Amino acid sequence: MKTITLLTDFGTENGYVAQMKGVIAGITDARVIDITHEIPPQSVRKAAFILQTVVPYYPVGTVHVAVVDPGVGTERRGLVITTRSHVLVGPDNGVLVPAARFLGDFTVYEITNKTHVLKEISNTFHGRDVFAPIAAHILEGIPFETLGRRITDFVDLDFGQGEVTEKTATGKVIFIDRFGNIITNISGLKIRDVLPFGKQIMVFVGDQTVPVPFVASYGFVKNNELLATIGSSNYLEISMNQGNAAQKLLVKEDDEVKLLFG
Amino acid sequence: MKTITLLTDFGTENGYVAQMKGVIAGITDARVIDITHEIPPQSVRKAAFILQTVVPYYPVGTVHVAVVDPGVGTERRGLVITTRSHVLVGPDNGVLVPAARFLGDFTVYEITNKTHVLKEISNTFHGRDVFAPIAAHILEGIPFETLGRRITDFVDLDFGQGEVTEKTATGKVIFIDRFGNIITNISGLKIRDVLPFGKQIMVFVGDQTVPVPFVASYGFVKNNELLATIGSSNYLEISMNQGNAAQKLLVKEDDEVKLLFG
Amino acid sequence: MKTITLLTDFGTENGYVAQMKGVIAGITDARVIDITHEIPPQSVRKAAFILQTVVPYYPVGTVHVAVVDPGVGTERRGLVITTRSHVLVGPDNGVLVPAARFLGDFTVYEITNKTHVLKEISNTFHGRDVFAPIAAHILEGIPFETLGRRITDFVDLDFGQGEVTEKTATGKVIFIDRFGNIITNISGLKIRDVLPFGKQIMVFVGDQTVPVPFVASYGFVKNNELLATIGSSNYLEISMNQGNAAQKLLVKEDDEVKLLFG
Repeated sequence: MKTITLLTDFGTENGYVAQMKGVIAGITDARVIDITHEIPPQSVRKAAFILQTVVPYYPVGTVHVAVVDPGVGTERRGLVITTRSHVLVGPDNGVLVPAARFLGDFTVYEITNKTHVLKEISNTFHGRDVFAPIAAHILEGIPFETLGRRITDFVDLDFGQGEVTEKTATGKVIFIDRFGNIITNISGLKIRDVLPFGKQIMVFVGDQTVPVPFVASYGFVKNNELLATIGSSNYLEISMNQGNAAQKLLVKEDDEVKLLFG
Repeated sequence: MKTITLLTDFGTENGYVAQMKGVIAGITDARVIDITHEIPPQSVRKAAFILQTVVPYYPVGTVHVAVVDPGVGTERRGLVITTRSHVLVGPDNGVLVPAARFLGDFTVYEITNKTHVLKEISNTFHGRDVFAPIAAHILEGIPFETLGRRITDFVDLDFGQGEVTEKTATGKVIFIDRFGNIITNISGLKIRDVLPFGKQIMVFVGDQTVPVPFVASYGFVKNNELLATIGSSNYLEISMNQGNAAQKLLVKEDDEVKLLFG
Repeated sequence: MKTITLLTDFGTENGYVAQMKGVIAGITDARVIDITHEIPPQSVRKAAFILQTVVPYYPVGTVHVAVVDPGVGTERRGLVITTRSHVLVGPDNGVLVPAARFLGDFTVYEITNKTHVLKEISNTFHGRDVFAPIAAHILEGIPFETLGRRITDFVDLDFGQGEVTEKTATGKVIFIDRFGNIITNISGLKIRDVLPFGKQIMVFVGDQTVPVPFVASYGFVKNNELLATIGSSNYLEISMNQGNAAQKLLVKEDDEVKLLFG
């Protein structure tokens, strides 16, 4: 079964996403799955992070549409990026790039052919008028080559990988979820190479300095105790068992994080 | 593929919408698409506006269910409205009418036949017990004529079209989206007839008077500058490039809007 | 058509639910229906209540996945519960039990066979790594017996049934919806046995004592007047016609409720 995912900053209290889904429904029977529509308005970096953590779980052939698009109506280009397993569609502002890179080799096409977009393209809503129909037509089999020309000067974006040495790790808070888990851009794999579970470490985050244990899961500490762990997307997280670490530590997204161990 | 859309004021933190979807899933394999469930409680007018802006993007044969229903449990009637391309199902309080009218000629049936509704009809939830099963059965092919009788005295609703003259436009703020775009009920088509892009105009909205350019898209002004444009649903919008116009101008939904040009 | 429902406390502003849906999409073509993802973090009791009120509306064969899972990463077990009509999948913390009991006889299996889960199971996200793939594989036909062993010492949960006598009813506020309806755990069926519609009763709730009529629906009282009724899920509700009863009465979830009649 064909699958399209949608990720936007449109919110769900209006009809914008539903307009996109109507356009898609008119072209293909593919199932449409929402990643999220609650990206903070125009937060390209956060959208790129969430997209990258989600796409690896989707079946081969899925087409992902990401529309966080502060540049809509200007000269910014529209892109289709193909990887060995997935296709990504959206604006040329970097939102697609970390996910594409995570999936391996990729090729970037600028959308120049207007055959497969809506007849009237608004200046403010390319999600509906360009990216949704392009994604639907891709699932129906149009060849990428007919969409436009290959480019290499796309806008890149890196939400950063924290640095890990033998005794320290530094990075940023990239995301705070509704449980108050503080998700950083420090690679879980790199941390695992230098730091064994069970070790006590010092965490500097926001204005706080706290000693916490580095453990395999929340349950290794008592309720309402802080911990560091590798989260479900393989990034280092600071959490509190059954509690809200971000509230406790007064941490905000984009705050610096530093760990000291060894 | 058969398609049903749902638009309600039920919210998504409870099980109400999921109960409707369960009823539908027991009757039809149609795909079900959420328009929104975050209409402010009992805001029939806002629901009618959003429904009207969304339905044109859906394929022929789609059945749209709209349940914003402050009169549930009283004598208010349930309706099925047929147009040449779509079917609309919901309470007789006007919520369906602007969308029906936008789609062209339409016929209104009062639901009187109880064959296709749930066996026990609650007094508080006709969305689940009446409208959802009726919509699903319509997609499965029951003839409209068997649902009830044609009526012409349905409750009408008009969220208003602003007035446009050669030198002014007046209307109301009908909707503020999460980007702070101020969407009015002033027809974009009528504005385009009298006002060329590029012209400077005066906007009176809420307690504010501001000069702004009338432009084709956000990108024609600098960041954090105000502008007037034709939004993606063909209504006049007051926006701020990369910023929040509604916050800047302290505008609320239902505020009066006046434009002066020429 | 095969159907999976999802109920979590993950929220929708991140990618957690979308990761679960990706895993499911890779295994089955079943339609996936969201019950809600806005259960307050780790509110097992509220999740159990909503699940119980929703499952009866779903077709035979539906698989329901409920992940409100404060014990993830500890020794808490994962369960598959089978009833005559539905299957329930989730953690062994009681969240599935009221729904299972409502559906009639049920059998509980502990998930011990790791054949059908993701290769790498995170310590923090069994919704994605265990419950989603198990649910999808169940729809694809794996026999329950191969998943693990039958158990009877599962964690039970009862969100309580209020008590009803000939002259009183006592219980708790179990849920306040976005309309301000105060939904209690007092059985509507039991109330109907002793109390006729039309009768005036005294309600004690929170710090308030108010006389209200017990009526069949909101429309039996004037706008902004309080009432008691049987809600759409067959529990006693205190409501206000066209208004917000919970705000008026300053009621919170978990508050005690007492009715006096006769």
